[in-house]
Amino acid sequence: MPSMNRRIRPTTWLQLILSAVALMTMGQVTAEEGQVPDLRVNGARVNAHLRELSAFGGNPQGGVSRVAYSDADLEGRKYVAQLMRDAKLDVSVDAAGNIVGRRAGTDPALEPMVLGSHIDSVPEGGNYDGDVGSMAAIEVAHMLAERGVALRHPLEVIVFQNEEGGTVGSTAISGGLTEGDLARTSGAGVTIREGIRRIGGDPDRLTEAIRKPGDIAAYLELHIEQGGILDAEGLEIGVVEGIVGIRWWDVAIEGFANHAGTTPMAQRRDALLAAARYVDAVHRVARSRPGRQVATVGRIQAFPGVYNVIPGKVATSLEIRDLDAAVIDALYAQVRDAVKTIEQETGASFAFTPASVSAPAPTDARIRGAIDQAAAGLGLTRKAMPSGAGHDAQEMARLGPIGMIFVPSVGGISHSPRELTRPADVTNGTNVLLQALLALDRAF
Amino acid sequence: MPSMNRRIRPTTWLQLILSAVALMTMGQVTAEEGQVPDLRVNGARVNAHLRELSAFGGNPQGGVSRVAYSDADLEGRKYVAQLMRDAKLDVSVDAAGNIVGRRAGTDPALEPMVLGSHIDSVPEGGNYDGDVGSMAAIEVAHMLAERGVALRHPLEVIVFQNEEGGTVGSTAISGGLTEGDLARTSGAGVTIREGIRRIGGDPDRLTEAIRKPGDIAAYLELHIEQGGILDAEGLEIGVVEGIVGIRWWDVAIEGFANHAGTTPMAQRRDALLAAARYVDAVHRVARSRPGRQVATVGRIQAFPGVYNVIPGKVATSLEIRDLDAAVIDALYAQVRDAVKTIEQETGASFAFTPASVSAPAPTDARIRGAIDQAAAGLGLTRKAMPSGAGHDAQEMARLGPIGMIFVPSVGGISHSPRELTRPADVTNGTNVLLQALLALDRAF
Repeated sequence: MPSMNRRIRPTTWLQLILSAVALMTMGQVTAEEGQVPDLRVNGARVNAHLRELSAFGGNPQGGVSRVAYSDADLEGRKYVAQLMRDAKLDVSVDAAGNIVGRRAGTDPALEPMVLGSHIDSVPEGGNYDGDVGSMAAIEVAHMLAERGVALRHPLEVIVFQNEEGGTVGSTAISGGLTEGDLARTSGAGVTIREGIRRIGGDPDRLTEAIRKPGDIAAYLELHIEQGGILDAEGLEIGVVEGIVGIRWWDVAIEGFANHAGTTPMAQRRDALLAAARYVDAVHRVARSRPGRQVATVGRIQAFPGVYNVIPGKVATSLEIRDLDAAVIDALYAQVRDAVKTIEQETGASFAFTPASVSAPAPTDARIRGAIDQAAAGLGLTRKAMPSGAGHDAQEMARLGPIGMIFVPSVGGISHSPRELTRPADVTNGTNVLLQALLALDRAF
Repeated sequence: MPSMNRRIRPTTWLQLILSAVALMTMGQVTAEEGQVPDLRVNGARVNAHLRELSAFGGNPQGGVSRVAYSDADLEGRKYVAQLMRDAKLDVSVDAAGNIVGRRAGTDPALEPMVLGSHIDSVPEGGNYDGDVGSMAAIEVAHMLAERGVALRHPLEVIVFQNEEGGTVGSTAISGGLTEGDLARTSGAGVTIREGIRRIGGDPDRLTEAIRKPGDIAAYLELHIEQGGILDAEGLEIGVVEGIVGIRWWDVAIEGFANHAGTTPMAQRRDALLAAARYVDAVHRVARSRPGRQVATVGRIQAFPGVYNVIPGKVATSLEIRDLDAAVIDALYAQVRDAVKTIEQETGASFAFTPASVSAPAPTDARIRGAIDQAAAGLGLTRKAMPSGAGHDAQEMARLGPIGMIFVPSVGGISHSPRELTRPADVTNGTNVLLQALLALDRAF
């Protein structure tokens, strides 16, 4: 109806109709009425949507390359927006480029319950990281609409943009995106500023996307574990205790480059020998206490880097992750202590420069309880565990209580075409997401 | 005399005259006559020549960049050829581009005694590596000519081309230069084939430069130590026991790349942890027995090489040097044994691929004796020691008995603008070279 376009855009018009439909159905069934504990998601549908989504950026050898702001990402986002509309959600793209699907609640005083994840991937990534949580959130909304279940809280499904490039979309919502971030070149080869324009956002109006602490009632995210613990232990649901804090350091080791033929072993100041003992010490320190802390040396290069010169310099790294920032600090102190001994042994010297800090994001105890009870009610085995990987949830934790549900990832493989979460686990996770949402809608 | 050019080339013509002059002077003084033990080189002259040579390719911050086949090398070679002519040597450039200065001996049945070294440098190199031996050899010839001392053997002074690029000139003479070597791009950016043309050789007639075993009576080379042993121990002369054998391996370590946040420490197959223990083991093995063997890991790189991925692959290296090939083999076996344990501990696997083999080149016992006695006769302190570095002498060892004389290198620094051998040590070394030559000329 072109004549109407001048006054009301079709999407707004559609929104009005959908809102009216939602209001009409609301009186029929509410979450309080007791029949919802038996409500189940459509497992065939959520798994079919996962398969359909995998076509956008799909690689011949399996998996996807759906890097944020790429053509594959743009097409995937169109598909997702349509799924949201099919789920009777009121769809918009915020100024940061996140896709937001909204559904009204019965209590206008309440802030929204938010379900979210992402659909962008790493290059040569898999079909489950982010995709499972995104398809599950839409399925929950779809099932609520299909059965005419009204919630007290408004419901929002958010598909965050560019999670793999550093939780860009959720960082924008939490108010943390900087001018430096916007100028950074993303994996698709454009700046994040230009990327936001490509996906329908407006980088000059980012403040409009920002939400304040208290603006959300709760945030729930279903995600594949990405580790191998659930798979190895034959468990079905992970109740996430929190997202670990991550600290990175650049480590520069300085010895003295010298002729490998003419310099006796005892007279060397070999930066690579010092580096070797450092790598071993990092490993030893990480394993020196019970707990699930991890420490990794991922980068190393020796200079000049030829067969026949004793390395004078080594550039390496340190990463430490734990749920508790104090544990990270303590492990770092232990590494620095070990390094003092290595410096004395080798005559090389170490310099540590902080490269990145990401604070731990604990999940909310009531939400963990709701997830655990939902899984128990569904007869699923479960385990409390940290998320060793970062997620959009850690940004949403700045705005309100968060919870995360993990489902098994076969062999713990992730960021790989070999990434696999079985359909039954996808369905289980989506049911837990639905039941936890219903419980929290009553409780919060 | 252009008309004569058609039948006799000027160099050949010049050779005839010089040979005649040499024959005329021969009767005056011979090495056997007893006065030569008191013969001393002109220390001021050899050190002045060293200083003058340093202008060719001299860097503003000190040292030289006189990379083989560069303009600086071409100019330095012209200077050297003139010094040889001043020393009454009959100068030619062989097909491989080596500068050869020849002086006749009294016994036409004898093969030549050869003195040699090189004047090419590494980029940003020093003023002593190769230069000291080259200037000293010319000074010895100059002094013999000046005092009219005739030797029984013909004398040759050879300034080998492109020692730093892999003893190219001496390898050509020993018959070891391959088509692959000729096609290799040298430090000056041209192929070695093209480089040989630039310096007046003819890469298509290389066989003319080849000498057979037995074609030389002896080869003597004076060189700076390049290690810090003589300097540290306050000694004046090193009597070289031989040039160490050098073996190189490429070492590929394969683990499993995985998420550094989600993979527990106990479930990792960290290629870099395995590499670290390997580097430490190489060091431990090299120090596990008395002797002057050295083992070095000079190269290392982890893949994918980012903060937050457990390295799945590491590319690294191994170099072992010793005078005794059996010791190299034994050390390598010890490293491989240690690696088996590391493979079991870490779940990573190692592959060793030989990258280069250079056999040890022992010096001749009679020549070592002559050097030691010459130094003793001059009142110089001395020490027997291996050459940890490679030299043209190792190629000449294929043709006849060799000997090498070391002089101290301050702090053991080499291949650096900070390389320094004091003038008194240059003079001492040149006097030892002269006296050892005179003794060997009588003995051989």
